[in-house]
Amino acid sequence: MTLTGPGRPRTRESTRPGATAREEILDAAAELFTTQGYATTSTRAVADAVGIRQSSLYHHFATKDDILEELLTGTVAEGLAFARAASAIGDGTVSPAARLHAVALFDGTQLCSGRWNIGVLYHLPEARGERFRSFLADRGELRGLYRRLGSAAVPAPLWHGDARHHGELAFRLVESLVSLRADGQVTPDSPLQVADAAMVLCGAGSTLGTIRADSLALIARLGRDVPDPVAGTH
Amino acid sequence: MTLTGPGRPRTRESTRPGATAREEILDAAAELFTTQGYATTSTRAVADAVGIRQSSLYHHFATKDDILEELLTGTVAEGLAFARAASAIGDGTVSPAARLHAVALFDGTQLCSGRWNIGVLYHLPEARGERFRSFLADRGELRGLYRRLGSAAVPAPLWHGDARHHGELAFRLVESLVSLRADGQVTPDSPLQVADAAMVLCGAGSTLGTIRADSLALIARLGRDVPDPVAGTH
Repeated sequence: MTLTGPGRPRTRESTRPGATAREEILDAAAELFTTQGYATTSTRAVADAVGIRQSSLYHHFATKDDILEELLTGTVAEGLAFARAASAIGDGTVSPAARLHAVALFDGTQLCSGRWNIGVLYHLPEARGERFRSFLADRGELRGLYRRLGSAAVPAPLWHGDARHHGELAFRLVESLVSLRADGQVTPDSPLQVADAAMVLCGAGSTLGTIRADSLALIARLGRDVPDPVAGTH
Repeated sequence: MTLTGPGRPRTRESTRPGATAREEILDAAAELFTTQGYATTSTRAVADAVGIRQSSLYHHFATKDDILEELLTGTVAEGLAFARAASAIGDGTVSPAARLHAVALFDGTQLCSGRWNIGVLYHLPEARGERFRSFLADRGELRGLYRRLGSAAVPAPLWHGDARHHGELAFRLVESLVSLRADGQVTPDSPLQVADAAMVLCGAGSTLGTIRADSLALIARLGRDVPDPVAGTH
């Protein structure tokens, strides 16, 4: 037996990824919520899946909602941090289109690469409402950053009267990766496809090669990485 | 008291839309599943919401899954019937782009106009698997028709190597209306926006005016109607 968190003994060795009991709880909960359902999964079932006692789980999370909130917030945390950083660069060396492409590519890669497709829980009635305001606020801020980058990329509306529309559609194309993944149809190329599609919607399809290069450079400059996306396309 | 279905008495007069007890059950279930959650809603709660006895509900639906299946199938039925009809027209008088625009506009209008946003239930773990193969097959056929229309509209790949990609993105943009609606951000303009966006992704943005007119003519020709979409745009 190994010791976890507040010193409670484990009932078995864990085989879950995660350096801490907290991370293992999140991984087990993500698996059960996305494959069995949120309402039907008890905290007891989560504890069993980790190999800890239910009382130990409560040292880390007071309620099942707390676990769900942390999982949901985790789906936007990296994308939001990146979008903030990409938006904050003020020296004029990166075009708004390249920033929007980089945000879509990085955010989409995050949605496709987690071990569990937690985004399928976004529209649970249980995940709406005041209890999840922190997640909803983060997701709202991320959507707002997409819209602002879209407006900056397309100062004069192209094919629609509202310039924020371009960034909004990019946000929704990226979130559609959740649905694509649930349908078992995500490929390594999928995040790049939605980032490229966002550019076409911004009227920048003819300079896609330059934008892609600038986007990858921005991702590297901000200390992030995406899996070799251009190699996967045609 | 009024008589419903197999002659069971109602416990109260219904205030729900629906000409038949079956339709009222579907309406009540759609409300409860989308606002309270699927797993947490019992058939007893659905019967109570209609004002019938649980035993009367079982005359119409043997299980809660049967209700969910009919609701899910209902979200794609009209769009699928329209897409089949639009695809079957063979006289060369309607361009593939106008067909794809019409399918997206009509299908998107359906997703936005039902009384309840049933599409939020698409990615429930409970709605996956063999039990729901009829719904999954219908949705898969609809996605395939989008892809084929996209390939016909863009015979040579534009900005991506796989020509089916254009139709696939149109399908996902239309389904993103489910998410937009859950976020309370759908406007009367939203279905037209996604249909137009699909055209831009197909490289047909410069002929949007013609395509819109042909799309609306096709919808009328197939005996359908959409609420005055062009009036809502700019």
